[in-house]
This record gives sequence, C-alpha cells and structure tokens, in this order.
Amino acid sequence: MRDDLKMDQQWLDEQTEELGEALAQQGLSLAVPMLFGQRYDTDKDVPIASMIDHTQLKPDTPAREIDVLCQEALAYQFASVCVNPRYVALAAAKLQGSSVKTCTVIGFPLGASTTLVKVLESRDALANGADELDMVIAVGRLKEGAYADVYRDISNVVEAASGRVVKVILETSLLTKEEIVKGCILAKMAGADFVKTSTGFGGGGAAIDDIRLMRHVVGSDMGVKASGGIRDRATALRMVEAGASRIGASAGVAIVEGAQGKAGY
Amino acid sequence: MRDDLKMDQQWLDEQTEELGEALAQQGLSLAVPMLFGQRYDTDKDVPIASMIDHTQLKPDTPAREIDVLCQEALAYQFASVCVNPRYVALAAAKLQGSSVKTCTVIGFPLGASTTLVKVLESRDALANGADELDMVIAVGRLKEGAYADVYRDISNVVEAASGRVVKVILETSLLTKEEIVKGCILAKMAGADFVKTSTGFGGGGAAIDDIRLMRHVVGSDMGVKASGGIRDRATALRMVEAGASRIGASAGVAIVEGAQGKAGY
Repeated sequence: MRDDLKMDQQWLDEQTEELGEALAQQGLSLAVPMLFGQRYDTDKDVPIASMIDHTQLKPDTPAREIDVLCQEALAYQFASVCVNPRYVALAAAKLQGSSVKTCTVIGFPLGASTTLVKVLESRDALANGADELDMVIAVGRLKEGAYADVYRDISNVVEAASGRVVKVILETSLLTKEEIVKGCILAKMAGADFVKTSTGFGGGGAAIDDIRLMRHVVGSDMGVKASGGIRDRATALRMVEAGASRIGASAGVAIVEGAQGKAGY
Repeated sequence: MRDDLKMDQQWLDEQTEELGEALAQQGLSLAVPMLFGQRYDTDKDVPIASMIDHTQLKPDTPAREIDVLCQEALAYQFASVCVNPRYVALAAAKLQGSSVKTCTVIGFPLGASTTLVKVLESRDALANGADELDMVIAVGRLKEGAYADVYRDISNVVEAASGRVVKVILETSLLTKEEIVKGCILAKMAGADFVKTSTGFGGGGAAIDDIRLMRHVVGSDMGVKASGGIRDRATALRMVEAGASRIGASAGVAIVEGAQGKAGY
C-alpha cells in the first residue's frame, strides 16, 4: 500500500508541511512541533479487554440495555463503555468509582453538525460525566480540501474537552488513502488523543490496511482506535497487531471469550 | 391494518387518554385540547413540487453540492432545501429573498443526543437562517414507554423553534404500529407541525401503510412528511394520496420530471 501511493517518509513530510502552510495562511499556528511517522511497537503483554470500548449506539436502545452494557464492562474490565449522549449520565452513574471510563460520541454519526454544536455537545457530555469523546470530523469539508475548517472543528472540541480524551473519527470508508493521511495529520496537529476509523453507521468498518496507515502517520505518541465490524477475537488481534491501541465494538464479550459476536457495530 | 390492530376511533381515544394521563402524572399539562383522527382530504390541485423538501444529508457532501441543490430548488420552486446543520448558513444565503425555505435536521439521525443539545442545535440552526427543523425523537425512550421523556424532548425543541416549523421524525422502520400511533399523539400534544417517517439512515423508508396510519392519527390540522426511499413520481404521488403533505427526497428533480431518481435518501 505504501508503495502504491509512494507514502514514504518524504511524502509524509511534504503532506505535513503542506497542511501546516494551509493552516498558517488561515492565521492558525500550531502550539507544538509535531512528529509524524515514528516507529510504533505493539505491546503484546497488554490484555485485549483493557483496549475495548464496549459500545452500544443503536438509536432504539432502551435504558435497561445500558445497564447490562455497564455490568459487562465492569465484569471484564473494559477500557470504557461507549454510549449515545442521552445515556451518558446513566452510564457514568453505573461506572462511578470504577476504572471503566464513560465514552460518548459527538456530532455522530454524520459529523455534519456545526463546530459550535460539537463544542456544546462536548461540554454537555462532560457535565453529564463523560471521560472520553469520540467526535466525527466534517467529512465533506476534508474531501473538498477545506483543511482549516476541519482543523478548527477538531481543535475546538479538544479545547472543550478540557484535557479529557478526544478521539477523532475519520469515517475511513468514505475517504481515499490520501484523505486518511491528511485527516490523521490534522487530528494530531489539533491536539487530539486518538484517530479512529469508523462510526459503524457509514457503510464500512475498520480495514487492516487503514489501521496500518493511520498508525504509520500518527506515530507512537497517539492512539489509534479500530471500530466498525469487529466481531471476534481474531479480527481484534489483527487490528492490534496492525497498530490499533483501542477497539470499538459491541461484541466485547465475544472478543474476550473468543466466541463469534452478533452483527452490529 | 386498522382492523388487524383494532385501531378504531375508540382505541385511538383510549391511547390519547392514556398518554395524557402519563404526562399529567409527570406534572405536564397540555396547553390546548387535541383532536385526533379527523377526516383528511388530499388536495389534488397542489403541485407536487411545492411539497418537496429537496434533501442532501450525506456526510461527505461538499459545499458545492449544496449550491446545486439550492439552484434546483429555486428553479423548481420546491418547498425547501434540507441540509445538515453545517450547511444551513450557506443554503440560507443562497435562498434569501425566495419562497424556498431552509430546512435542517436536529439530533440526526439517531435522535440520541440530549434534549439540551437538541435545543441548542435548534437555536444555532435558527441563528444560521433555518426556517424548518426536522428533529429525531428519542426512539429508545419511546420503545420503553418513557412517554414523558419523549414528550419533553419534542416540546423543548418546539419552544426553541420560536414558531418555526418543527417536523418530528419517528423512524417508523424501528417502531411497531402502536409505537407509531403513540409517537404521533405525543408529537401533536407537544405542538409540533409535522410527523415524519424516516431519517433515510435507519435501514427503512416511508411505507404507504405508515403514512395512512400517521395521517389518520394526527387528522387534518397537522402535516405528514414521507421520507426515505422516495425516488420517482409514482411513489411520491401514492404517498400524497395516502395522506402525505410533504415529501423528503434527494430525487426531487426526478419526481417533478417524472424520471427515475438515483438511490439515496
């Protein structure tokens, strides 16, 4: 893949420089120097359970299913429970005093709300007890090269998050490889903690190739979350081997137990 | 269908009374007496173009496609252009001075954001120039019988809309017939202007039977919007005959010209 697109270090440096200039022209200056493309080694000693965001985002989910989700996350010591904003307060109450985080989604799943509403939604989620925010980028704006708009959208949410973890969902199935690279660079420049592949509602999920590419671009000092269509242990482990440090799935129990999960996010 | 579920006037009255009591127990009193199940006659003289919300909600839509959408809406005199919140200001500017309205979506497409965020998103959309707000209900809460929660969610958006048109998306493909009836009654009680079938992202679109049922419940003094999968003139006309007074479609031009539209919302 890298050969096909000539995605060597020089190309990556050029991409980074080009995006930095595009932002500078809009009066945006980056706070810290960025390193892209550093080597990343998968830590094979980390248990898979501790990488799982145990996820239920379907619109018809009743509150009682959130209870079950939280109980499972506590039993298996998953990284977090990931629920829609309407259920953040409920999940946060159930998880209080544990090490399991409450994760929610912002501008989800289309990414087409205004930056202001993404910011307000982030503040509301934090007030309800969220620890981690998975935001969707302005996909259409990335595709038409409005990089400063995409950058501002992310950096405003990062600021609103007040130090909590922000994951940036690129919706990779709608992007070219080059757009994925640009999305990763912009997310890192904007100070996000993770890049993430998919909403699970966009018609495509995590691809091994995309995880490898995203990890290559962001290097070792940023997280990569694989999500969408990960329903069994073997797939989850392949994602980790390719560079994923977090797995978003509704099949968390099946992944840990080694069974096959049902269809869904 | 009415026979199957015994959805006669008596049943409808009982449903209404039951929901009214559920709301009253939560301290919610209705401002005006409601009439459900009145006769509705389709007005065959109204041109189909004037019923169409010309719609583009795909996440990867670039700004230039919104330009085209607005030009088409002006040329064909559609009811409105329906775009994601991020593009409301752009569409409103293009449509300024015309009779074509700017419509957007709230809590879309999952309906699972908090009521506060739906309210803030509504205010932001109005400030950007929106005339009509298509909000998604809290689907999971309706399904588990949290009627007061669903009612408050809608009535808060209606209040935030300050007299602008509010359409309530039920996402009918996820609901039973009885839940559709309850959703319609709650939307009407909360002061919304329309009930609407589908987001187009929920795996199912408008069904003739559902339109007929929704029209029967809300009567003649409320709008019914059919949306999701309407791609040709014949389907649109069948929806109107069944009781739809608005059609949401990306195939507006094909519907007016009598051609077959492409797949999509």
